Amino acid sequence: MALDALVIAAHPDDAEIQLAGTMLRLQAAGLRVGVLDLSRGEMGTRGSAEERDAETAAATKLLGLAWRGNLELPDSRVAATLENRERLARLLREHAPRLLFAQHVDDLHPDHSACGRLAREAWYLSGLARAAERDGGPPARRARFLFHYMGHVPFEPALVVDVSAVWARKVEVIRCYASQLAARDARDKGEHLLFGADILTRAETRARYYGERIGARHGEPLHHHGPLPAGDLAWLL
Amino acid sequence: MALDALVIAAHPDDAEIQLAGTMLRLQAAGLRVGVLDLSRGEMGTRGSAEERDAETAAATKLLGLAWRGNLELPDSRVAATLENRERLARLLREHAPRLLFAQHVDDLHPDHSACGRLAREAWYLSGLARAAERDGGPPARRARFLFHYMGHVPFEPALVVDVSAVWARKVEVIRCYASQLAARDARDKGEHLLFGADILTRAETRARYYGERIGARHGEPLHHHGPLPAGDLAWLL
Amino acid sequence: MALDALVIAAHPDDAEIQLAGTMLRLQAAGLRVGVLDLSRGEMGTRGSAEERDAETAAATKLLGLAWRGNLELPDSRVAATLENRERLARLLREHAPRLLFAQHVDDLHPDHSACGRLAREAWYLSGLARAAERDGGPPARRARFLFHYMGHVPFEPALVVDVSAVWARKVEVIRCYASQLAARDARDKGEHLLFGADILTRAETRARYYGERIGARHGEPLHHHGPLPAGDLAWLL
Amino acid sequence: MALDALVIAAHPDDAEIQLAGTMLRLQAAGLRVGVLDLSRGEMGTRGSAEERDAETAAATKLLGLAWRGNLELPDSRVAATLENRERLARLLREHAPRLLFAQHVDDLHPDHSACGRLAREAWYLSGLARAAERDGGPPARRARFLFHYMGHVPFEPALVVDVSAVWARKVEVIRCYASQLAARDARDKGEHLLFGADILTRAETRARYYGERIGARHGEPLHHHGPLPAGDLAWLL
Amino acid sequence: MALDALVIAAHPDDAEIQLAGTMLRLQAAGLRVGVLDLSRGEMGTRGSAEERDAETAAATKLLGLAWRGNLELPDSRVAATLENRERLARLLREHAPRLLFAQHVDDLHPDHSACGRLAREAWYLSGLARAAERDGGPPARRARFLFHYMGHVPFEPALVVDVSAVWARKVEVIRCYASQLAARDARDKGEHLLFGADILTRAETRARYYGERIGARHGEPLHHHGPLPAGDLAWLL
Amino acid sequence: MALDALVIAAHPDDAEIQLAGTMLRLQAAGLRVGVLDLSRGEMGTRGSAEERDAETAAATKLLGLAWRGNLELPDSRVAATLENRERLARLLREHAPRLLFAQHVDDLHPDHSACGRLAREAWYLSGLARAAERDGGPPARRARFLFHYMGHVPFEPALVVDVSAVWARKVEVIRCYASQLAARDARDKGEHLLFGADILTRAETRARYYGERIGARHGEPLHHHGPLPAGDLAWLL
Repeated sequence: MALDALVIAAHPDDAEIQLAGTMLRLQAAGLRVGVLDLSRGEMGTRGSAEERDAETAAATKLLGLAWRGNLELPDSRVAATLENRERLARLLREHAPRLLFAQHVDDLHPDHSACGRLAREAWYLSGLARAAERDGGPPARRARFLFHYMGHVPFEPALVVDVSAVWARKVEVIRCYASQLAARDARDKGEHLLFGADILTRAETRARYYGERIGARHGEPLHHHGPLPAGDLAWLL
Repeated sequence: MALDALVIAAHPDDAEIQLAGTMLRLQAAGLRVGVLDLSRGEMGTRGSAEERDAETAAATKLLGLAWRGNLELPDSRVAATLENRERLARLLREHAPRLLFAQHVDDLHPDHSACGRLAREAWYLSGLARAAERDGGPPARRARFLFHYMGHVPFEPALVVDVSAVWARKVEVIRCYASQLAARDARDKGEHLLFGADILTRAETRARYYGERIGARHGEPLHHHGPLPAGDLAWLL
Repeated sequence: MALDALVIAAHPDDAEIQLAGTMLRLQAAGLRVGVLDLSRGEMGTRGSAEERDAETAAATKLLGLAWRGNLELPDSRVAATLENRERLARLLREHAPRLLFAQHVDDLHPDHSACGRLAREAWYLSGLARAAERDGGPPARRARFLFHYMGHVPFEPALVVDVSAVWARKVEVIRCYASQLAARDARDKGEHLLFGADILTRAETRARYYGERIGARHGEPLHHHGPLPAGDLAWLL
Repeated sequence: MALDALVIAAHPDDAEIQLAGTMLRLQAAGLRVGVLDLSRGEMGTRGSAEERDAETAAATKLLGLAWRGNLELPDSRVAATLENRERLARLLREHAPRLLFAQHVDDLHPDHSACGRLAREAWYLSGLARAAERDGGPPARRARFLFHYMGHVPFEPALVVDVSAVWARKVEVIRCYASQLAARDARDKGEHLLFGADILTRAETRARYYGERIGARHGEPLHHHGPLPAGDLAWLL
Repeated sequence: MALDALVIAAHPDDAEIQLAGTMLRLQAAGLRVGVLDLSRGEMGTRGSAEERDAETAAATKLLGLAWRGNLELPDSRVAATLENRERLARLLREHAPRLLFAQHVDDLHPDHSACGRLAREAWYLSGLARAAERDGGPPARRARFLFHYMGHVPFEPALVVDVSAVWARKVEVIRCYASQLAARDARDKGEHLLFGADILTRAETRARYYGERIGARHGEPLHHHGPLPAGDLAWLL
Repeated sequence: MALDALVIAAHPDDAEIQLAGTMLRLQAAGLRVGVLDLSRGEMGTRGSAEERDAETAAATKLLGLAWRGNLELPDSRVAATLENRERLARLLREHAPRLLFAQHVDDLHPDHSACGRLAREAWYLSGLARAAERDGGPPARRARFLFHYMGHVPFEPALVVDVSAVWARKVEVIRCYASQLAARDARDKGEHLLFGADILTRAETRARYYGERIGARHGEPLHHHGPLPAGDLAWLL
């Protein structure tokens, strides 16, 4: 299925927590958006794989995604192997997104940084004609832009997407992941081991901070590896 | 008057908005803290100089500062001249703080960056014996540490002070500056021209963001120009 | 006169050599563009001030600028004084551009870096209501964006403007400055003292290099001090 | 065995050369300190594995370590595999250190950078509850701080530990590795292939250089990936 | 065969496009230069492996290389494995180059970055005496300098080699790779998928840009991981 | 007097402490070297201006300098004014050095950073033909290279000069400044207020540290603002 934009994420809910606002805006602009989760998140502290599958389905529906897939790599063992990157490259040729989003290659969570590396390598390889011919699938295609979104380590963003107008809907989408928001048991204070605070509080803090960087109420930060084409700058005004 | 810590700020309320939490913690640790404002803030969009003086007095009292002074430089024209830096160096020798705080030398507001430069230059000069002798005042003294605090441009901090426990008091201190929090007239939406949002909202966003960087609810970020002495690392545990 | 975009340059021809393509594209998008030269370039190696005035007039006409002004600061002595920045701030409030362009604050040419600093400081001050009232002119206005363009030192750009379609016209505009393109006398090889090569060759090299960074034939690089608002990203496709 | 601090090193003697002073200070502060070597250093230019084992035992005793272990990975082939990082994560849950130290991820020696990556990934994974349950060992635990220490590539440190008072003892500890300090044969000038100079000379140079950065005679530099919590800053005075 | 300089490249033609000028100058200075290709480039969009072999042979002859080898790793799957790096280390001990050149470790093309990492790791290991003894080949030798050359991502170079005098010959060398310069079929516009423009145009743009950075007509940029020895600086004059 | 190299320093003894080794090597290579002190160092903690003059004369003789001058700017008030930079530019045209050395623009000592800025600005202006004509002195000349040397803040150097062979002579040169090496009175411990340790100890630490970066016993680090021309790289071997 042809997509305009594809978000790659190590675990279900990563795409939503970090990028739901951007996905909603892309769709509002008429683009077809998909999400590829690399694992089923079965090593997450809270929720069974079955619960998480149901929650992902609900979030997918609420977001109105055109497509959602899962590479079924083992959670906590997502690895940037040649095999995984070639599976991903084939998938990129098949869906042919023009905009690609993945976690950052330097993220502290090893699954996140593996996701970032896999996406960067597969993005490059998806554009090689001979690789496409060898695999017998659709012809070579490389997304025009590869952005990295934020996970557990901050970076200086090139762009911030103003998601103020869709913030309330993003919160609803995150709430689909009820198992991730509730404490697991008496010892579980519902807070992240590294950062403290629960998922929604942290998402809001980050959105407000990066929103203010561009003078907006809520924003989602994006990293790009080089300069962006400025068009005629009219989009800034 | 001998001080343990001195905060230098371009305008009254700058020190409070950015660093009230740190000042409260320093005082709770038994240190004598002072604030030196470089101007009376008379070019601020809201409030007269008289109103601002009264508000500053109230904030000073609520903070429990040991000392507050004002260099009476013209607001919007704070300049890193030789004369200003020597006045400041004399003042540093007089109060002999061991910890010094000032705005960042690369801040977008020209008064802020001038404050940062004046502080850095005066800090260095305050330690020269001959300069002290020439001026006929107290002997040379240089603060052990010069930290820069954040204004209108972010930096990657070396340290974040956990101000969660004093956050409510910091908000009260900022509320002393009522003229700065209210809209000036119908056209004034109470929002910052660059960042949108009002002062309290922005202060809370920043505090939450930098707090999360160290796993705390609220934090104030500090820049240092080189490595810090680690002691025996016990302060980390 | 109300402008949408204003380019500030230390010397006549700086704006054209570095940014003529961007100006042509802005105008093609329906924006009113002006140029403010800070000096008449009277210390340039080639051409008299009168020749340069006539050349500037021709280039201004060919570019189709809505406005061109000159602060008449002394060439090679452009300085970031309080007086100069307040003159500039008044001018910014008067023309009220939404996009502002100036040389980079770290440029090796001291006039260029002074231009960058003056622009950054005046840009900030132009938005202070009280400063506007004190000066008795138009109300406070701050351009939404301040970009720095490249001079004698490279930087990693945030954006590159694709100027392929207007490149031939940009070359014609630069050719208006005939005195700058010809050798002055037998010892003058027509090459820049630092970089070798003549103006047109260097302009083309830079345009090709930054063009390739975004997959275009010719490009002009722009620096921005923080993240840019991404809109809905549709401008990228 | 519960530890307060654990130092991970690619080869025996790495921990001592780079971090013996910090370990001595941690112990003087009452903390239990351990060292985990990833290999037995059998590819080192000088000394047999048996000699090195005996030397390591002597150094361990002199340091007064609470624990020392060895993963027995092949020297010059230390690799950041999933299996190795999970072995390391189990070990971290078992010893539950609050402070973790490892070589830097960008070190020029491939074993050092692999050590840095393994430590960073295992550190993250050690905090995942499900991973702990799957492995059947102790519950999830993540060290509060992960510092990288210096090997063959300099970095700008966040902290420098003042080791002046224990410098003489550090030198004695390093001298336990007699095989590493003596020339191997006539062609061996006892100098490092990259840096010249013998181990003790280089250790002293580095200690003096980083010591001066904080105004001390001898120091050991530490890298941290983000801001550190400042406490009440009293530890600085 | 003893070499003075060795250039390592992921694909045949990489060394020529990026570094032919430097190789020609090294040879003109009397040094013996070799090239090691890691793959035969069989996944390149244009040309069969046989065509590319013939082209490589022609380019090798025209360059006048003392040696050319090929590791025959699979194109698009060049991987920084332990086995590959040890093969490479043996080869480095055998040819004993004093200057080593390889692609950059952060290049966007995964084969390029794998080449950079393999070279950096093998370079380090080639100097370990025990590793040399284990392998039974020539004794340990480590090149005095490892430079990275530019591929698909720019970096700030430490040095730029002035290749103006050999530029015409470099163009001839690149023209040996005729299959890479011609369009493959009607859909192939002969332009790079990422950057647009054909190989020769891009090579010239880059050479002119980096040439101007040192005041030369054409230059090739080199990255080095630390400071370089300055000699007596006479080479600069 | 025509010079090949000129070292600009804020205070007498700065040039010697930081760069005596480089000056000795330049002279050994047959170059004519001069030093320009910007002040007489009359605000230094130890020694009268007369003592310092005598010491400077002795050091100048021991170094064998071709020329030494002094701008007689007030110590602790060295300022990057238009007037000072034009005096300096005239001096540069007069002595026409091809290599220029000055302190770093970001040094913590305000005189050092002013020296760095004055040198950078005057260096640029010295190459403008019209400025030379206006001043009626020698024609425009710009040094081919401007290096910054280290003062009170470290930087990552582009080059390190190996001064091992002249280290003993450098120490003798520094010893000429006897007043700076002895304690001034009982309270003066002979240590730097920021860094501790006396001048010779600190000079040796720095020389050893940067020496090791290039595999030498003693080195002096140099900063350059862009890539350096590589020649044929033969100077590296």
